[in-house]
Amino acid sequence: MNTGSHIKALAFDVFGTVVDWRSTIIREGEKLGKKKSISIDWADFADAWRSRYVPSMGRVRQGDIPWTNLDGLHRASLEKLLEEFQIENLSESEKENFNRVWHRLDPWPDAVEGLVRLKSRYIITPLSNGNIALLTNMAKRAGLPWDLILSAELVRRYKPDPEVYLMVPSLLDLKAGEVMMVAAHPDDLQAAGEAGLRTAYVPRPLEFGPHGRVETLDPSFDLVARDFIELAEKLGAR
Amino acid sequence: MNTGSHIKALAFDVFGTVVDWRSTIIREGEKLGKKKSISIDWADFADAWRSRYVPSMGRVRQGDIPWTNLDGLHRASLEKLLEEFQIENLSESEKENFNRVWHRLDPWPDAVEGLVRLKSRYIITPLSNGNIALLTNMAKRAGLPWDLILSAELVRRYKPDPEVYLMVPSLLDLKAGEVMMVAAHPDDLQAAGEAGLRTAYVPRPLEFGPHGRVETLDPSFDLVARDFIELAEKLGAR
Repeated sequence: MNTGSHIKALAFDVFGTVVDWRSTIIREGEKLGKKKSISIDWADFADAWRSRYVPSMGRVRQGDIPWTNLDGLHRASLEKLLEEFQIENLSESEKENFNRVWHRLDPWPDAVEGLVRLKSRYIITPLSNGNIALLTNMAKRAGLPWDLILSAELVRRYKPDPEVYLMVPSLLDLKAGEVMMVAAHPDDLQAAGEAGLRTAYVPRPLEFGPHGRVETLDPSFDLVARDFIELAEKLGAR
Repeated sequence: MNTGSHIKALAFDVFGTVVDWRSTIIREGEKLGKKKSISIDWADFADAWRSRYVPSMGRVRQGDIPWTNLDGLHRASLEKLLEEFQIENLSESEKENFNRVWHRLDPWPDAVEGLVRLKSRYIITPLSNGNIALLTNMAKRAGLPWDLILSAELVRRYKPDPEVYLMVPSLLDLKAGEVMMVAAHPDDLQAAGEAGLRTAYVPRPLEFGPHGRVETLDPSFDLVARDFIELAEKLGAR
């Protein structure tokens, strides 16, 4: 399959696909715990924070609450989690700083090298529910070489709403079929495909930890690669 | 003055400030003219195209025509100019390709090196009336190392409307005074300053050609530099 020949731009899901949110949150949580004498299981904390992600966006998508960017949703979830885990001794600036751990997530080991290769042939952009400040700060810290940064925030909708996917061909003056969505999550890819984008599935079996759920492989994707290096190879970007 | 200490992000005007539109249009025009046997003065053509830029955005800003991005405004101006210069033998695809000369403008000689230095210390973004596709294609071709790409298109307003300037601190989660606008045009900087941004003036005396108008120096800017290398030095990015 010569999938790459008509593709002009690649749009990447970020949390779980480009960066490993779980390890970073655990590491920063343990550091904070040591400093503030908080002894909880930070893996549980990371998983609980992540488990609030989809429902919190759901409230925006259904119109239950007005537009709130992801920093705002993460912060509201954090407040609930601090209660739940009975953490009471954080100052406002410590909470704010810990909330911004989502700006400091580490990339998967293959991500930067793969993106550098892909950039030589394609326009590369994140297409994330993360807000622009979060994605910009993350990219600078981790060295993610995006050509530009597109976020759900720009259309004030969250994936999987079609407006988010359609923003990419619209702003880049491309046809939907000239854009390929890259994600570790079949539901994200399915929605991208329904909006007319091409789809590349890069499973990240460690996203939810060594014992986490693994997504089932759906044969309907245009391309499957085990990491961004293989993705670059399959798309002819070496 | 230790101007750089509170600045977190630099937003650059593009046409004339980062890239030399006039030389590139003349060069591509002469090439097209040779191919299609069109003998006109391409410097006059470039100047005429540029002279329609501000009035064409004015029609959008005043609500005389609905939102149209800059590729669209350039194309409408091009149609008028082809009549004016009595050029009748261009195909649709030749017109479309020539219209996209604005995506292929060459940077001033100091621009890439200066931006690379500035990027090591600040978030750097264009803040241009050019649309996202134009700015993205330009950056890839010219090697402009933006952290992200912000355009008037994202708020469907044109500079000097304040919404365009205010988008930068809003999307980057910064205070207006933590953002510095960099431009070769005093009116752009004045509007940025009124929106609360800091201002850096980088005169480009050759923008309008060897005999073109030169802007008067306004002492109210936070910083003046003769090119992006000096700007990097003055902002402590080496």
